[in-house]
Amino acid sequence: MQTSLPNWLMQRAFLTPERVAVYDERAQKTFMELHESAAKKARQLASAGVRKGDIVAVFMKNSVAMIELIHALHYLGAVVLLQNTRLTSYELAWQLKDSGAVCVIADDELADRIEENVRVITVSELSALPKAEAEFQQYYHLDDVATIMYTSGTTGKPKGVLQTYGNHWWSAIGSALNLGLHENDCWLAAVPFFHISGLSIMMKSVIYGMSMYVMRAFDAKKANDLIIAGKVTIMSVVSAMLQKMLADLGERRYPETFRCMLLGGGPAPKPLLEACKANGIPVYQTYGMTETSSQIVTLAPEYSLTKLGSAGKPLFPAQLRIEKDGKAARPYEHGEIVVKGPNVTKGYLHRPDATEEAIRDGWFYTGDIGYIDEDGFLYVLDRRSDLIISGGENVYPAEIEAVLLSHEAVEEAGVTGIDDETWGQVPCAFVKLKSGYSVTAEQLKQFCQERLAKYKIPKQIYFVEQLPRNASQKLLRRELKQLIPNN
Amino acid sequence: MQTSLPNWLMQRAFLTPERVAVYDERAQKTFMELHESAAKKARQLASAGVRKGDIVAVFMKNSVAMIELIHALHYLGAVVLLQNTRLTSYELAWQLKDSGAVCVIADDELADRIEENVRVITVSELSALPKAEAEFQQYYHLDDVATIMYTSGTTGKPKGVLQTYGNHWWSAIGSALNLGLHENDCWLAAVPFFHISGLSIMMKSVIYGMSMYVMRAFDAKKANDLIIAGKVTIMSVVSAMLQKMLADLGERRYPETFRCMLLGGGPAPKPLLEACKANGIPVYQTYGMTETSSQIVTLAPEYSLTKLGSAGKPLFPAQLRIEKDGKAARPYEHGEIVVKGPNVTKGYLHRPDATEEAIRDGWFYTGDIGYIDEDGFLYVLDRRSDLIISGGENVYPAEIEAVLLSHEAVEEAGVTGIDDETWGQVPCAFVKLKSGYSVTAEQLKQFCQERLAKYKIPKQIYFVEQLPRNASQKLLRRELKQLIPNN
Repeated sequence: MQTSLPNWLMQRAFLTPERVAVYDERAQKTFMELHESAAKKARQLASAGVRKGDIVAVFMKNSVAMIELIHALHYLGAVVLLQNTRLTSYELAWQLKDSGAVCVIADDELADRIEENVRVITVSELSALPKAEAEFQQYYHLDDVATIMYTSGTTGKPKGVLQTYGNHWWSAIGSALNLGLHENDCWLAAVPFFHISGLSIMMKSVIYGMSMYVMRAFDAKKANDLIIAGKVTIMSVVSAMLQKMLADLGERRYPETFRCMLLGGGPAPKPLLEACKANGIPVYQTYGMTETSSQIVTLAPEYSLTKLGSAGKPLFPAQLRIEKDGKAARPYEHGEIVVKGPNVTKGYLHRPDATEEAIRDGWFYTGDIGYIDEDGFLYVLDRRSDLIISGGENVYPAEIEAVLLSHEAVEEAGVTGIDDETWGQVPCAFVKLKSGYSVTAEQLKQFCQERLAKYKIPKQIYFVEQLPRNASQKLLRRELKQLIPNN
Repeated sequence: MQTSLPNWLMQRAFLTPERVAVYDERAQKTFMELHESAAKKARQLASAGVRKGDIVAVFMKNSVAMIELIHALHYLGAVVLLQNTRLTSYELAWQLKDSGAVCVIADDELADRIEENVRVITVSELSALPKAEAEFQQYYHLDDVATIMYTSGTTGKPKGVLQTYGNHWWSAIGSALNLGLHENDCWLAAVPFFHISGLSIMMKSVIYGMSMYVMRAFDAKKANDLIIAGKVTIMSVVSAMLQKMLADLGERRYPETFRCMLLGGGPAPKPLLEACKANGIPVYQTYGMTETSSQIVTLAPEYSLTKLGSAGKPLFPAQLRIEKDGKAARPYEHGEIVVKGPNVTKGYLHRPDATEEAIRDGWFYTGDIGYIDEDGFLYVLDRRSDLIISGGENVYPAEIEAVLLSHEAVEEAGVTGIDDETWGQVPCAFVKLKSGYSVTAEQLKQFCQERLAKYKIPKQIYFVEQLPRNASQKLLRRELKQLIPNN
């Protein structure tokens, strides 16, 4: 079996040169123009010393320039580390060090947040560099790593998820086999490219030969205007975005050309789904994660009435089962969601143990809890026992606990998510102080601010005498909520 | 990279059980019903002794039962040898012997044409068999051989082309990335499943979750009626079929729901393409062969005006080049068409030498002659220097010559194609008799009738003194036409 394909953007520039690849507020670029820009950037990166196999971090907000840069790095055979623009210097430095990235390409206004001892090239600096000769990857080998995104687990140590060209390819194909592929499709990217939900749109664009519309930052009004004007036919959202769009929409309705609102990023509130139904918005609920290179389970609107709240069935190349105590669960029995498919990561960077634990016999253990009904539809109950999803961002309690524990006054710390109307959930911390020490909640929040992205900072900090632990002293995060006064 | 996928029909029966998989004149079956029928047939085949890895020949005309049977054989992990129903007993026997098929499943009315000493099970007999326990293939391994179809080359000895699950998968995906995939698609299969043009529709149906409409034998009037009634949206044809449909169509027009007339099986006459354009028929010209598991190069209608007569550009996963004297040809320079892609066969059954000659460094040498224009569009000039395409069927001169030479009166024989209004081309033979022997053209045709399918029998046989040969005595088939009296 041949496991390489012609370089995707170059093939598009050859096959469909005049088709529009990308729009933004100001302009548009055809696949040929996008290729030419990517090739130019690749030669500039080559003159900056980027070589095949290098890991290069990209620290940028959504833009056409960011798309060009990612393609350019792939032209050179470099591996792209995508960094969340909301991370602190401390978090960024950890990823750069752990991955061994050779340099960071950063938006001009973000560059000074990189404090790690690594070469930083701003977007302006890159565009001023001369062009060097460079050998471009004519083929993408499906087993090669294309991108890395960091994610944390229950241990709190962020791990680099390896996403191969094949993962992206199969994710795009699985989605097309489910959603179909129309000549006039244009996918609105208002979710960030440093998340798999955004990056996967960019990959689909070159694989399908489909237009995409790039939004620098999500804006509910602008998104609604684009849909109503018929400029986009598909959009990826998380609940918080959809809620804002509904509020802005008012009495207006989307046209029939808008065929899919792909809703991911955690279980969706039922009132939201019902409001969408009342407004005729074709919501496809979906379940996926960084490790599955975006969606792996999706609910078609034809089932949105009868299977309300379900994440649906696997994409065609994928499979799903619920495991309970090492055995397949019966319908409706709760257990761990286990998935399989060619879109699933081959593992974590430099973490053979974590990889071996997560992927067994080809099946990926998500750590999420759910059940399957008698027709095979998945219902997600809880993302990884302790994962908090806040406005579509993954927040890992262990990561916040580690920061709190590094404060001299803190003896023990536990973090859990509490419901929030705007963000779905927000983190909330429980702290036991060392005897003889004292600190205020405000002081602890300030301490966190230097070390954690804003969305990870506990909204509430409670001081407690004792944290709930089991016999082997493992923290019982699910029981933390009971410590909230008057809860 | 994982190279296996969940069993296609079983996955469809799970994901989209209620969607219609197949229609024919009388009925329809959902994917769940098709799966149940296939599973039943698989158990009956198991009771007949069919085992994983067996090669089983299928000698049937298009029907829902044939689709079920092919899926059933794949459930058991058997390899399906598809046999052209127009072949003679002599030709069939050769394929059965060469392939080592363990048995033949034949339509009742065709069964007595099998004279080779091999077990024949008629469709009626199969349906009366008891069901045995059987282990079904839960996964299709993309490298495994799914089907075999025989084709001849310049040597005249038919060779079994190995088509893997992966070849069929990538062919379907490449086509979808080019033609798109609509929710209401229904593909009309009026070409036989024993040809790759027909079989590929069946594969697309389960991979896409798309309906198909099966026609037992092509009927221009019925095909037009189906299109006009909006029952089918895509159809595969060869020129001779399209010509008949145009003649039947008259002043009527196809509705907009009909979005693709996929035209393969050899270079299309320009007047036909022009007539289609005048009638608003969305013709996609295409180039492909048994070895590429159907289309590999396709022209989109948006180019049908400017690139009239071109077969188009490669499908997204594939590549194409023209080779002349071992080097890449310049634009417009004529040379051999060489292709690459994951839909290309891994070779010929039991023919390592032929495989090595045809596939070099991952590229498949088609033997066909063509050129590429400055924009990369392919123009096919001649199918393999000596291949005759008659009504969409491949006819190999060397195969006919071999039969003629086996006649006691024939000393030398040469066969070439001559133009024919109905069939595009028909074979024409030139024979030099042994001294002292005499035979009539009619007698020779009768001799051929016992050994060759009807469409291979020379329409004209000319007796000549000498055949054109080069210095090394190689027959110059292209010069044969000059021997036709008054030509």
